Amino acid sequence: MKKDGALPYRIATLASHTALQILKGAKDEGFETIAICQKKSRRVYESFKVADEIIEVENYQQYFDIEPQLIEQNAILIPHGSFVSYLGWKRVQDVKAMHYGTKQILEWESDRTKERQWLLDAGLRLPAVYKSPQEIDRAVIIKFHGAKGGRGYFIANSPEEFNQRIKEYPEEKEYAIQEYIVGVPMYAHYFYSQLTGELEIMSFDKRYESNADSIGRIAAKDQLEVGIKTSYTITGNIPVVIRESLLPELFVMGQNVVDASKKLCGSGLFGPFCLEMIIDKDLNFWGFEISARIVAGTNLYIKGSPYTDLKYDVPMSTGRRIALDIKEAILADNLSKVLG
Amino acid sequence: MKKDGALPYRIATLASHTALQILKGAKDEGFETIAICQKKSRRVYESFKVADEIIEVENYQQYFDIEPQLIEQNAILIPHGSFVSYLGWKRVQDVKAMHYGTKQILEWESDRTKERQWLLDAGLRLPAVYKSPQEIDRAVIIKFHGAKGGRGYFIANSPEEFNQRIKEYPEEKEYAIQEYIVGVPMYAHYFYSQLTGELEIMSFDKRYESNADSIGRIAAKDQLEVGIKTSYTITGNIPVVIRESLLPELFVMGQNVVDASKKLCGSGLFGPFCLEMIIDKDLNFWGFEISARIVAGTNLYIKGSPYTDLKYDVPMSTGRRIALDIKEAILADNLSKVLG
Amino acid sequence: MKKDGALPYRIATLASHTALQILKGAKDEGFETIAICQKKSRRVYESFKVADEIIEVENYQQYFDIEPQLIEQNAILIPHGSFVSYLGWKRVQDVKAMHYGTKQILEWESDRTKERQWLLDAGLRLPAVYKSPQEIDRAVIIKFHGAKGGRGYFIANSPEEFNQRIKEYPEEKEYAIQEYIVGVPMYAHYFYSQLTGELEIMSFDKRYESNADSIGRIAAKDQLEVGIKTSYTITGNIPVVIRESLLPELFVMGQNVVDASKKLCGSGLFGPFCLEMIIDKDLNFWGFEISARIVAGTNLYIKGSPYTDLKYDVPMSTGRRIALDIKEAILADNLSKVLG
Repeated sequence: MKKDGALPYRIATLASHTALQILKGAKDEGFETIAICQKKSRRVYESFKVADEIIEVENYQQYFDIEPQLIEQNAILIPHGSFVSYLGWKRVQDVKAMHYGTKQILEWESDRTKERQWLLDAGLRLPAVYKSPQEIDRAVIIKFHGAKGGRGYFIANSPEEFNQRIKEYPEEKEYAIQEYIVGVPMYAHYFYSQLTGELEIMSFDKRYESNADSIGRIAAKDQLEVGIKTSYTITGNIPVVIRESLLPELFVMGQNVVDASKKLCGSGLFGPFCLEMIIDKDLNFWGFEISARIVAGTNLYIKGSPYTDLKYDVPMSTGRRIALDIKEAILADNLSKVLG
Repeated sequence: MKKDGALPYRIATLASHTALQILKGAKDEGFETIAICQKKSRRVYESFKVADEIIEVENYQQYFDIEPQLIEQNAILIPHGSFVSYLGWKRVQDVKAMHYGTKQILEWESDRTKERQWLLDAGLRLPAVYKSPQEIDRAVIIKFHGAKGGRGYFIANSPEEFNQRIKEYPEEKEYAIQEYIVGVPMYAHYFYSQLTGELEIMSFDKRYESNADSIGRIAAKDQLEVGIKTSYTITGNIPVVIRESLLPELFVMGQNVVDASKKLCGSGLFGPFCLEMIIDKDLNFWGFEISARIVAGTNLYIKGSPYTDLKYDVPMSTGRRIALDIKEAILADNLSKVLG
Repeated sequence: MKKDGALPYRIATLASHTALQILKGAKDEGFETIAICQKKSRRVYESFKVADEIIEVENYQQYFDIEPQLIEQNAILIPHGSFVSYLGWKRVQDVKAMHYGTKQILEWESDRTKERQWLLDAGLRLPAVYKSPQEIDRAVIIKFHGAKGGRGYFIANSPEEFNQRIKEYPEEKEYAIQEYIVGVPMYAHYFYSQLTGELEIMSFDKRYESNADSIGRIAAKDQLEVGIKTSYTITGNIPVVIRESLLPELFVMGQNVVDASKKLCGSGLFGPFCLEMIIDKDLNFWGFEISARIVAGTNLYIKGSPYTDLKYDVPMSTGRRIALDIKEAILADNLSKVLG
């Protein structure tokens, strides 16, 4: 590592999702940065001055075409939601460039059944899943997997109600029955350093979903007239701090998820991750999903969150925390510890 | 310009709306500031220490009485929503003091028909407007212009439903029929510098409206009992970041609005502006309104937003960005470029 | 006071509620800190590095057992919501350690009738309270005090409707009838320094309550099917800025509350406090509650709020503002002025 001047590694990522904070954080920690950019996105990453170099691609599937450039430039690739979504967890395994975090864990994140097993192993409280309508003993939500693109659903409180309501959907053959949890969504952003062995709580957010987060602005009477149905398209994120007395339990849950991951694959989960939960009126946490990489809700905290402001003397975004992890690994001559 | 000491110009604004950040930003850029203040507001601007001088007025219509003081003090006036609203766009044209931004554009912002034409010229997607109830072919909202102060409205899905529902409002003669868009509100704050020719995305917010943003807290059953009707009085603002993959389209929309404005009047729109939009579940943007000056949603970001934190090394509010634009114009001996 | 090195006093608080910002703020102002911690919470306060010393207790009722340690260490205790709630206002009067703020005011905060009297004395607009169902002349909410833990309620618009609906709750004997106010909740955070005599507006928040803040995400039709009832468990807080033109009235209300408190007990209310209000569609403030100590909504602003960013050159949380008040009292050789 050169003492004066930039670090001899570069940080690269696909120019979407959380790339702005990843690249900004990398620059703040002394790295040169590369944005892998679609033509239409170029202006964004130039305007915000986060990329020392822009590699233009037609689409993100082209990643493997430009990978040799990354390898040649000693670039460390930071995966995020769009990266995993565009390539798919299987093709991510073929990445040859240096990759921050454990690639294999993405399979566990991507497969609903495996993800549920992981979270149950970690001792999280999950909504019950019903195998048959006859078992319905409380409010449940019935979600269709069929032609309607997963958007169709209805609610039932008993086998009788189920049998009545299902008649309205004669074309739907496949469905899942899940316990219906009422409470507020909460997304907890964690960082676990493989290098230091420390788990950190970085921040929290709630999503801003269309139309779920606006139909409440329509009076019930008007909703009924227009026949409003809920959809859950993510359009952005809103900051939130959590009730301080819930933090001890959050540390326990995060730690259990990390510990359980070590039994799933190689070095398990490390770096940033997110538990997506519902908190009910009795302050129970209900786990819904885990993201085993940086999530978009952290985009709120480019200059640090109320939580990182406690712990760090500099503005510490999750993107910067990743770069710091890499830098400390390089300085400790132990870079492989944070690659996977 | 004096090298040591304050700039030989002052920044002045009406003490309301976004005056706190405008004055604070001006001081941060080295200007002395003047707040034109109603007696009851004096305490606010003194407590937050943003005004080097306070000129007290009985009401804001008195502006022209105190204008000579502004001219004498070499003050540059920053317009904002309350300024435009209290004086009206026509009287703003009579302002003799130095005025930041293009005065003529305020006519286009204030007139519904002209505003719609501007946004259509810029290629924005707008809700359809129906000339006659017979044309109704989807969910529409019928808004009354009449005695009820614009608060009355109902929703209809067909000409038949319209004919049925309109009978409940025998006293209402004037109404507008507009396509009913369901999605989340998003306010995009832009800054376009006439001096540098650069368009910047500054931040985003959602409004906090009474009662629209609280009726969702009332269970549907209770809403129906109490006969809740939605109202949209702005009480404040809530921060939000937008899904990163939507930023390319936001730059395009902002640029198109600026470009289209140049055909409307003189030097067109420059300085801060805001596009008020709905994002539907398919991630389409629907334009509703444009504010051709600083908006109150930027009050959230007095110490910078997640977006300005990327681009600037200092905390850059929209108010400070205005002052920086003026300072750079002064330093380039080109102040007239930012006045209008 | 020692000129170089830490102040000869320590700041202590129970490790919950707002302890993170209280301890962080104290350290920023040069104090050593003590967290009185339950075993399960220890990790939180260690992770965020805010406590120079942790005193472990089984439960917070044990406070009086460890109080001698606080006295011996010259510790000043900062009360917060959990402190008052765990000990009760009566036992707080027995605290022998130095205590920031007026202990007696907590009685006025804790007793509904006394609190209402205080707020009425301060001239705040409060929802009407009805002594008998026969008086009902508008929408009212009927809240039960009974076995259901205060969670049962219904809404009525007339004596007739009341008589009809009350039949559904044969077991409920005790209830309160209160005017039903529709509008958005707003929590205004104030700080009043006994030392400087100045009232400051620190910040605003809205709570994030389960399930009140998520049922609006459920379409009205589905709510009716599942029989959703509203609950109000606090899970966190969301930042908000208020319409700037409302600030003059907020200063008046805060000042009136402080002034009225001086007639209630000794030196009255000082330090941080919060007015919990509803803003209706006509921009009227309706007072609901006062918290006569730091509230959890200030946890959002560990690095300062848009309001403290105007006034202070350093990041000023409410926790830090408390420490600054104490430090200034120490430096003025007038510590007793901020104790009570």
